[in-house]
Order: sequence, then C-alpha cells, then structure tokens
Amino acid sequence: MTVFERTQARAADALRPVRITRRYTRHAEGAVLVAFGDTQVLCTASVEERVPPHKKGSGEGWVTAEYGMLPRATHTRGAREAAKGKQSGRTQEIQRLIGRSLRAVFDLAALGERSILIDCDVLQADGGTRTAAITGAYVAAHDAVSWLLERGLIQRSPLRDAVAAVSVGLVEGTPLLDLEYVEDAACDTDMNIVMTGNGGIVEVQGTAEGAPFSRQQLDALLALGAQGIAELVELQRRALAEVLA
Amino acid sequence: MTVFERTQARAADALRPVRITRRYTRHAEGAVLVAFGDTQVLCTASVEERVPPHKKGSGEGWVTAEYGMLPRATHTRGAREAAKGKQSGRTQEIQRLIGRSLRAVFDLAALGERSILIDCDVLQADGGTRTAAITGAYVAAHDAVSWLLERGLIQRSPLRDAVAAVSVGLVEGTPLLDLEYVEDAACDTDMNIVMTGNGGIVEVQGTAEGAPFSRQQLDALLALGAQGIAELVELQRRALAEVLA
Amino acid sequence: MTVFERTQARAADALRPVRITRRYTRHAEGAVLVAFGDTQVLCTASVEERVPPHKKGSGEGWVTAEYGMLPRATHTRGAREAAKGKQSGRTQEIQRLIGRSLRAVFDLAALGERSILIDCDVLQADGGTRTAAITGAYVAAHDAVSWLLERGLIQRSPLRDAVAAVSVGLVEGTPLLDLEYVEDAACDTDMNIVMTGNGGIVEVQGTAEGAPFSRQQLDALLALGAQGIAELVELQRRALAEVLA
Amino acid sequence: MTVFERTQARAADALRPVRITRRYTRHAEGAVLVAFGDTQVLCTASVEERVPPHKKGSGEGWVTAEYGMLPRATHTRGAREAAKGKQSGRTQEIQRLIGRSLRAVFDLAALGERSILIDCDVLQADGGTRTAAITGAYVAAHDAVSWLLERGLIQRSPLRDAVAAVSVGLVEGTPLLDLEYVEDAACDTDMNIVMTGNGGIVEVQGTAEGAPFSRQQLDALLALGAQGIAELVELQRRALAEVLA
Amino acid sequence: MTVFERTQARAADALRPVRITRRYTRHAEGAVLVAFGDTQVLCTASVEERVPPHKKGSGEGWVTAEYGMLPRATHTRGAREAAKGKQSGRTQEIQRLIGRSLRAVFDLAALGERSILIDCDVLQADGGTRTAAITGAYVAAHDAVSWLLERGLIQRSPLRDAVAAVSVGLVEGTPLLDLEYVEDAACDTDMNIVMTGNGGIVEVQGTAEGAPFSRQQLDALLALGAQGIAELVELQRRALAEVLA
Amino acid sequence: MTVFERTQARAADALRPVRITRRYTRHAEGAVLVAFGDTQVLCTASVEERVPPHKKGSGEGWVTAEYGMLPRATHTRGAREAAKGKQSGRTQEIQRLIGRSLRAVFDLAALGERSILIDCDVLQADGGTRTAAITGAYVAAHDAVSWLLERGLIQRSPLRDAVAAVSVGLVEGTPLLDLEYVEDAACDTDMNIVMTGNGGIVEVQGTAEGAPFSRQQLDALLALGAQGIAELVELQRRALAEVLA
Repeated sequence: MTVFERTQARAADALRPVRITRRYTRHAEGAVLVAFGDTQVLCTASVEERVPPHKKGSGEGWVTAEYGMLPRATHTRGAREAAKGKQSGRTQEIQRLIGRSLRAVFDLAALGERSILIDCDVLQADGGTRTAAITGAYVAAHDAVSWLLERGLIQRSPLRDAVAAVSVGLVEGTPLLDLEYVEDAACDTDMNIVMTGNGGIVEVQGTAEGAPFSRQQLDALLALGAQGIAELVELQRRALAEVLA
Repeated sequence: MTVFERTQARAADALRPVRITRRYTRHAEGAVLVAFGDTQVLCTASVEERVPPHKKGSGEGWVTAEYGMLPRATHTRGAREAAKGKQSGRTQEIQRLIGRSLRAVFDLAALGERSILIDCDVLQADGGTRTAAITGAYVAAHDAVSWLLERGLIQRSPLRDAVAAVSVGLVEGTPLLDLEYVEDAACDTDMNIVMTGNGGIVEVQGTAEGAPFSRQQLDALLALGAQGIAELVELQRRALAEVLA
Repeated sequence: MTVFERTQARAADALRPVRITRRYTRHAEGAVLVAFGDTQVLCTASVEERVPPHKKGSGEGWVTAEYGMLPRATHTRGAREAAKGKQSGRTQEIQRLIGRSLRAVFDLAALGERSILIDCDVLQADGGTRTAAITGAYVAAHDAVSWLLERGLIQRSPLRDAVAAVSVGLVEGTPLLDLEYVEDAACDTDMNIVMTGNGGIVEVQGTAEGAPFSRQQLDALLALGAQGIAELVELQRRALAEVLA
Repeated sequence: MTVFERTQARAADALRPVRITRRYTRHAEGAVLVAFGDTQVLCTASVEERVPPHKKGSGEGWVTAEYGMLPRATHTRGAREAAKGKQSGRTQEIQRLIGRSLRAVFDLAALGERSILIDCDVLQADGGTRTAAITGAYVAAHDAVSWLLERGLIQRSPLRDAVAAVSVGLVEGTPLLDLEYVEDAACDTDMNIVMTGNGGIVEVQGTAEGAPFSRQQLDALLALGAQGIAELVELQRRALAEVLA
Repeated sequence: MTVFERTQARAADALRPVRITRRYTRHAEGAVLVAFGDTQVLCTASVEERVPPHKKGSGEGWVTAEYGMLPRATHTRGAREAAKGKQSGRTQEIQRLIGRSLRAVFDLAALGERSILIDCDVLQADGGTRTAAITGAYVAAHDAVSWLLERGLIQRSPLRDAVAAVSVGLVEGTPLLDLEYVEDAACDTDMNIVMTGNGGIVEVQGTAEGAPFSRQQLDALLALGAQGIAELVELQRRALAEVLA
Repeated sequence: MTVFERTQARAADALRPVRITRRYTRHAEGAVLVAFGDTQVLCTASVEERVPPHKKGSGEGWVTAEYGMLPRATHTRGAREAAKGKQSGRTQEIQRLIGRSLRAVFDLAALGERSILIDCDVLQADGGTRTAAITGAYVAAHDAVSWLLERGLIQRSPLRDAVAAVSVGLVEGTPLLDLEYVEDAACDTDMNIVMTGNGGIVEVQGTAEGAPFSRQQLDALLALGAQGIAELVELQRRALAEVLA
C-alpha cells in the first residue's frame, strides 16, 4: 500500500507546527492566537458579571462560545454571516462543540455566578479550525481564570483539567493526525476528538465521508488522536508557563 | 454496583418496542411512522426532479433532510421554530446528521439528477428522536426508491446498504442501549451511533455530559450500539418485506 | 344544470367521514387528531401558568393558536416555514382565525390568569384544514379544561359553548358542504363558517375566487354551513362523552 | 333600546364624508388619497412590465397589493414594521384582502403580461382603513389602466366592474355603517364587505368580537353594507369623471 | 463656462419653493408636511413618557428619528422595506443623521426623562429628502415641545436653537443650492449641511461622486449652504409664528 | 487655554505610529494588517470574476467593501452581528464609506467586468477604525491589482491615485489629529476626511457631538486632516515599495 504523501514530508502521526501566542490583543481577559500550521484562530475569553437566564440565582456560572470565520480566511471568499443575517448550521455546530468542550473542564459552581464568553475567530483556514479553536480557547480561558484569581474575584480555580482537540482521518486507508485542508477534502473518514489532560474523552465525532469505516479503523484513529492530544496539552502547559510582561 | 432501574424492567441492552408503519400518510413517495417506545417520528421521503446548484449538470442526485419537532411533542411546550423565525442549532445539527447518514448508503450517480428530500417531524418525544428519525428515514427512502423503480425512472436501486441509528449512554456507570428521556437527562455520557446493515460505521458522536469517559467505556458503548443497530436493521428488513395493498 | 360529481358519490350537503381521536399524543393536556376525510390535523392544547403582557395583572386568561403544515402534508412538498425563517401570510391568517374562534366560547375571567395554547399541525391535507383545525381544537381545549378542573385549578368550566367550523362553496353553481382539495381548487366561491353549539355565528369569511356571488347564493351557503356545523357539534359531543382509560 | 350616539350626529346608516383625490402624488400611474372621515389612505397603482414567476409565459397579468401604516397614523405611535423587520399578521391579512378584491374585477388576460402593484399607506387612521384602501385602490387602478390605454399598451380596459368596500358592525345591538375607531373598539360584531358596482359580493368577513351574532343580525348588516357600497361606487364614478389638467 | 440650466430657470443659489404645513395629521403632538419643491416629507413628533435603556434613571430625555419612503414616492417603485424585512443601509444612515441633528439643539436634561420620536416619511421624492426631513422635523419637534409646555409637563423649552439642512453640489463645475433629483444624479460632488439658527455647523457630509473636489470648491459649497440654511431658518420661524385654530 | 494631554505625549498634529503589514494572511489577493496605534484592522482584497447585477454587461467592474468588528476588539465585548442576525446601522455606514472611498480612485472600465471585494475586520479597536480601514484597504486593493497585472488579466492599472483617511476632532477646543478612543469619546466635534494622493477631497464627514462648530474650526480641522493624509499616503507608498518574497 502506498502511503499518502503529506506536505513538507510530515509523518502520518505528526502534528503540524503549533504556535500558541498569549495576549495577542489587549482588551480581552484572555486573548490567544493559536496556529496549527496555516490554520490561525484568534480565541478570546471575556469575563462578564452575569449569567444567562437558565443559570440566574443558581450560584453557578456559565461558559459558552461563539465561532466565526473571516470571509477571506479561506481559498475562495465566503459570504459574511453578519451580512447574510444568519449563522450557518456548520457554524452553530462548531460553536456548540467548543462550548461543551470547555464546560467539561469547568467547575461552574467554583466560577461563581458569572460568565466566560469564548470567541473563536478564524483569521486563516487550512483545516482543523474547530480543533485549533478548542485548544486555543482553553489557554484563553485559563488566562481569564488567572485574571479573576488575581483580582480576588474567585479564591480557587474552577478549572479541573486541561482540554484540547485534534482531528484524525483515514486518507487512502492511512490514519493521519491533524488533517490540513487538502487532506480533509480527500479523506474517507474524518474524526474530531476532544480529550482532557488526564486522557478522559470529552467528545468523539467521527463521520464516514466516503465508505463506512470499521471498528479496527476507529480504534486506530482513537489511538492516534489520544497521542496528538497529549502533545497539545504539553504545548498548552508550556505556553501557560511563560511569564508575560 | 447497583444497576439503574429502567422503565418496565427493560434490560440494559434491550431496545424499546420498535414499530415501523409504512404509508402513514398518502402524498409522499415514502411515508413512515417510526416509534422507539414513546418517541414517534413521521419520516417522509419526497422525490423531486431537480437538484441543488452544486449538483446541477453533474449527472448525480442529492439526498438531504430536514427535522422538526411539533411544539407539544415534549413534556413542556417548546416555541415553534417557524414562529421564532429560525431553526435552533440543535435542529440544524440533527438534520445535517440525518442527511449525511442517508447519503452514506446512496449511490448518487445511480439516483440520477434528482433529489430525495427527507422530512423527519417528531410527533411525540421521549429521547432518541434523531436515531429513530434516521432509522425511519431509511425505510421511507427505500419506499421512494421503489416508487422510482416501479415507474421505470431508474433501472437499479441506488441503495447500497441499509442504515440505522441508536443511542447508547452511561447512566450511573452502566452502559444502556436506546435511552429514553429520563435516562438521557441522567446520563454522564451520551452517544449516537449510525451504522450500515453490513456493520460499517457511518457516524459516531459521543459526548461527556458529566465526567469524561475512558477508552474502555467507549468500547463498551460501541459494542452495545453495534448490537442494537443489528436488531434495528432486521426490523427495517421485516417492515420492508410487508406487502402493502 | 348538471350536478358536480363528488368523490365516493358524496351528497352535496354531506360532510366527509369525520373522526375525532382524543389523547393522540401523551404530553399535552389536550391532544386530538381530527380527520375530515383525508385531511388530518393534530390539535394540542397546552396549559401554561402565565399570560401575555397585555393580560398581566388583569385576572383574565388567554387562549391563542398556532398553525403549521408538515412539508409533505400536501401533494407536492412545500417549503418548511422554520427553514424559510418566516410564516406565510396564509399561515398567520389561519392561526389568527383559530385563536379568535376559540376565544369566542371562552370566559377568560373564569379561566384565571393562565393561557391555553392551541397548536394545530396538519399531518395530511385535502382541503378544509382550517375548519378541521377549529373543530378539533375545541375538543382539545375541552380536555385541557377538564385537566384544570380535575386538579382543582379552576372550579367551573370557562367554556360557554362548543365551537366548530366548516367550509362551503359554489362549484359549477352547486352549493357544496365541506370541500375537499379538488373541489376547493375548482370552486367559484369559498366560504368558511365558524359557529357555536347554540347556532350563534362567530366568523363568516366568504371569498369570490371567480365571479362575484349574489346574496341568494350567500344565503344558500350560510344555510348549508349551519347544517354542517350542527352535525360537527354533535360529533364533538360524542367524542367528549367517550370515557378514556 | 337606546341608540348608540355617533360623532357629529351621524345616522346609523350614513357613511362618513368621503373624499377621493386623484393625482395626489406625481410619479405613480395612479395616485389617490381617499378619506373616509378622519381615515386617510394614500393608494398608488404602479405599472410594471413583468409578472411574478407563477404568471410567467401565461400571457396573463397580475394585480397585487401591499399595505402599511405610518407609525403615527394612530392615537399612540406603533412600531415601524420596516424597523421591526417583519409585517404583522394583521398587515398581511389586509394586503392579501386588497389584492384579492382588486383581482375580482380585473380580466388578467386583457391586462397582458404585466403587473399593477397597489400600495396603500395609511397617513391617518380612524377605523376602516382596509375598506377605504380598497375603495381608493380601485380608483388608482382605474387611472393606471387609463395610462396604459392612452399609451396604446392595451387596446381595451381589463376592468370588468368597479369594486368598493365598507365596514358594518353591531354596536350595542344597533347595526352601524362605516365604523370609526371608537365604534370599532366598542362593537360586538365587525364585518367588512367588498362588492362590485353591479352588486356582486366579492368578500364578506364578519367576526363576533363579543357575543356570537344571529342570522338575522347578519342579514341586517349585509343589507346595510350593500347600501353603503352602492353610495361609494357612485362617489368613485364621480371622481373618475373629473377631468384633470 | 456654460452654466447648468435649472428647472424653471431657478438661480444657482436659490432654494426651491418651500412649504411648511403644520398639523398635517391629527394624532401626533407635532405633524408637519414639508415640501422642498416636489419633495414632500411628512414629519411627525411623538412624545412618549419613557426613555431607551441607556437613559433610564439619568434624568435626561432622548430624541431619535426613523425615516421611510413610500414605495412609489420615486420615479420607479422601490421595494417596501417592511416586506423585505430590513431597512437599507441608506435608510439607516439617514435616520441616524436626522436623530443627531435634532439632538444637537436639544437640552436633554430640560426635556426630562421622556422621549420625542421623530418619524419622517417621504410621500414624494425629488432629491433632498433628508435635508427636507431635518428642516421639517425641527418644526414638528417644536410643536411637540409647545404641547409639553402647554400641559405643564415641562416649565421651559429644551430647544436651544433652530436647526435646518440643505444640500449643495457641484454640477458641471457650478455650485448649486438645494439639488433636485436630476441635478443630484448629474452632480460630481454632493454635500449635505446641517446648521443651527445661529450659524453653528452641526453636520457636514460631502462626497465626491465623480472626481475628487478641491478645498476651494468645498469652501464655495459651504458658503452656499450657509446662505440657504439661513433662509430655511427664517421660513421655519414664520411657520411657527402662525397661529393655528 | 490648557492643551489636552495626549497619550505618550503625542503632539496635537501627530499621527499615532502607523504600521502597514502586507501578505498578513495567505489566501487573499491582497491582505494587509494596518495599525494606527492600538487600532488594528485586517483588510483583504478578493478578486472575483463576476459583477453585481447593476454592472452586468456594462464592461465595467465593481469595488465594494464589508466591515466587521470582532466581538472582543473593544473594551467590553459587543454582540456578534452574525449571531444577532443583522448588521448595525453603524456597520453599514462604515462599509458604504469604505466602498465609496475606494471607488473614487478606481477606473471601473479599466478593471474590466470583475469585482474587488474589500473586507475590513477590526481585530483590536482604539478609535479611528474606519480611517485605518480605508488606508489599509487601499494597499490591499493595490496588491490585488498587481496580482491581476501579473497574471495578464488586465494590461494597465485601474488605480488613478492613492486614497487614505484620517480622523480629526476638537477636544476641549484643541484640534487633534487621528483620535484614539478616549479622545473620540471626549471630543466636541469628530470629523473623518478621505483624500487622494493628489490632495483631492473624496469625503468629508464632520459631526458636532457637543456644541456646534464654527467655520473657522472647520477650516482648522480640514487643514490638519490634509496634513495627516499626506503623511499616510507616503506611508502607503513606502509599504507598497517593499519587495515581498
């Protein structure tokens, strides 16, 4: 079996170069530019001292996310959702996934009755925007939590663990880690995996784009994803260890 | 470990009573009422002799789906999406999933340049509406394909296999098959699995509602789902074998 | 003058077979499937312990209605209103009519400061969906009132009378009762009449689709409608007399 | 029985002062300001050399109407529909009624494959805006037809008859013609009648606002309306007989 | 240089005939029909005893404006914004300009915590609708202020000065005052100027439609505008001096 | 008179540090990050081989712009316009201004029947986002024009001149160049000026936020703006002179 040739001779089980830049913009409590190769997503975490109606009076906080893509983040320009007057189904799916993933590591009672709003805006897209977004959003949320701790608004961190995400897929029968756009377009099976720092699974979403996949293939993809997420969690840890001026 | 007590002493690995009623309404080429216990979904398949823009001139057909829930299908009345003026993110996620699941078993070239539009409308909800919808939609699509064959509009069936779906979940640590509403609300992990008659996996969507889940738990859920889907595919086969007047 | 030939040799002054099935679904306080021949409408009545702003603090309740049609209730599939993002003018007219018709027999003070929300969803359409909806909605509302009485939430019924509706029309000069779709499409004049059990007129809406109609023709249509409604009110009475398990 | 006291000692069967001003604005092919007492509606008729999709290639034309109310046409300011982003159910009902009423007197084949678009905008409201609108719209449409005839675009008038409308109602048991706002708010039964110059009925819409009404009351209202419309048709005839510079 | 020939031999620095008709409709606290030649705008000022959220509890009032154009105010019919479901960018720009212009002469603290809502609806358009709207809106607002003073709701007028507006433009190199539609369409530079009675500048909006303009041309246009506004302020003063029955 | 103290001792007539970074993202034909101090706007220019309906068959091209602000570009998070389902009036005003400004320097016939779509997305806001956007958009458009020239799609540049923009304002009586957010919030008069490289004026928009301003003040602001734009045009020239790999 011939192996699919990846850009820049990347190994099948290798992540793209990952960069995590904190304090990318000034105003947000957390503001992270995350790059998975040519995919670049600006993730901000905003603290607001109020909660949505279903949490009012509960003593618990809320964490939610919105996702957007700049019209020319992609190869050909896409219509601006604000101008069309509605968010696509794809956008809604992704922002719901980001929100669930972040909430999986938050102790909402420890957050107190306030919200952290995550905004993930794709500046440049080359596959894996949602997994980059989750990975960056965790770092932005962590900075927002530090901001709350520094001001004494909370006494202990509501974060129970790290969370990161990666895509895996079967391209011409080969399991590949962290698909870029051309691989994503060519793959038979596409899977997004979200896991915690301790290796707990938060979300698994696998889709057969072409032929259905077997249980053996699923197992191979899950193992590859777990390895990639472990690397991402280490990169998050290092980024958070940097001391910013 | 105490085992979660299911309604009507249902076993952890048992489906709810499933009923598949074909020709439930008159006008659609396929019209199936599917019941998974108290969950009832009306699935219609409509043939249209045109395709969306991205398929025009391709010689290939298209299969897509829409999903809705009657306002009082649920315990408390939900707002009517037509009156609110937009479909929720949840609705869009579900209808995209149904469409992908059906397309996974369709040879779009064999369908010819025409569309099959699936409408899944929930008359009564008690958990598992999306999995019931996929299971019923396959039968409705099959009837629409028979309609095309009978009229000589196509010479061979574009259906490559059956497709069905079921939910599985971890409730108090126990893996359960085909969750009803109270189980869904109580579960730590909720997974929807879509598979073909041949046991190929089309879609896996697992979400940790509470604590993250382990690889072992995931494996147990996948096995339970595969067993349930095999039973559903047999029930689809029997329903399609009935001769209607 | 030749007489228009009706389906199944139906007499000009005969209703189609009417079926009224109570408790068609589980969750709503009233849930009625009403069939006028091949027209089938699911009517639910939901009790909510709140009122719209214009009734707040008035001590009075409110009764309102929404109407929808499943996309493939009709011969050719219609666009889903939730997906289009708005209700058509026709839908709004019909739901306003249903709401007014029900309120005509309700003593809103006796209802107390709560709402009854009627949902009429057409599962299958063959003409007369709005008149079937009103006729079924009354039965559903009656069941919701019984539910309130049984729980002691109200001491006496706020229903002052029954209400039912029927369509009449002039087809090739012949007055016909309870038009089905092909008759409706062929008629010169189409009239919907809503009346109470005591024969009071609640609503009359007559439209010349082709040539204007005369006062004599209007009188004939009104007489035919009054007769049909008397029969419908008797059928409602019988349906409500059934003892449900 | 005491008789309801009308403004300015108007008789129960008297219209308010009616004024019909043609060429009220410059650009439209027909532009009429119609006043029924303090109700003032600007009705324009615009000719467009195209038809909606359902008439394309049919050789027939189309006549349709839109209705609006200036925000401060009423006693208290109403929200601007353009700012709210949607037309109310009431607005849609009224504009559909105006369109149907005008089409009832048009021979669409004689109009040729073009459209007449009627716009009825209420500058000041005091009850009866829809009936004033229909009455004025006919005169505007007639002017648009004359414009087409003068330019030789059509050889004969597609207008088969005049059409006008009036409201009638039962106020404290008394049948009143052409209700003004305070009467409309107080009435038990409100009916709008649309008739042709020859006395044919185009539309009857009667609604019991309070108690249901009897067949005798309906007959009295229909007679009163027929008399009022005969007067309005004569006023339309006179307005159209005026020679404009 | 040949001079551009204006309609009816109007001088380059002459306004069109201006008419300001107060109490044009009955219900609004101020209701002015303003005509700049064939441009006619109905401006109403409505007093409401509440303020938008950003002014609640501030002790200050608010003045805001909405703008609309009847569909057939123009040479060819424009789509109705209420039917399209949104206001155009042009509409929003204009109504924001009218609101800012009026607020420039209002002492919001002296108004007290209430709102004046200006509605400017164009009945007939021939260029300069926004400048006519501002000029008329001031008179309507003045009448609304008088209404408040007469009822003792405020003790002194919150109006600090008059405000009026005019358009100027360069047509074939000639600076022209108060452009009508054909001039507006032909002009290279179009400028709207809003000034107070005392000659203070409130707003200047100049746009090069064709070639950019020079500082000298800008100066000429500003001088012409200042002269025109002085005349308009005098016409406003005279209109307000008329004693109405 | 005390002079207003600017951040970092900036002189009243000094621009903030301006950075113009070309090829900031990969996919767009022109992609420029422009910074005016802490205001950062990503400007992309996308070439599309089609034109809007009003230009079809004209042989001319079109240039248009859209504008957006990331939700947390600002001090406090603003609602995402895509989620709200509509663009604000402010957004629409700004994107119309950017489009007009760019078209002022384009020879649309020389562009040929194709479009250049400008997207200006604010990553970080500190006043002057629209003037930074115009200044950056010109550079992005220039790169898109070079892309067209390099591919031989056009033979000569359709750009007639450079275009840039700056804000000026009166703060406590002092004319200041290039306002940052705190100055903008404090200013009495705010003016945006758009000019070409040759010093032609394309757009002047001046608004009295507080007291009206005099002709002398307007003259001072215009002179200050002209000076600032001359500097910006020089910075654009230098950025375009850089040779990119």
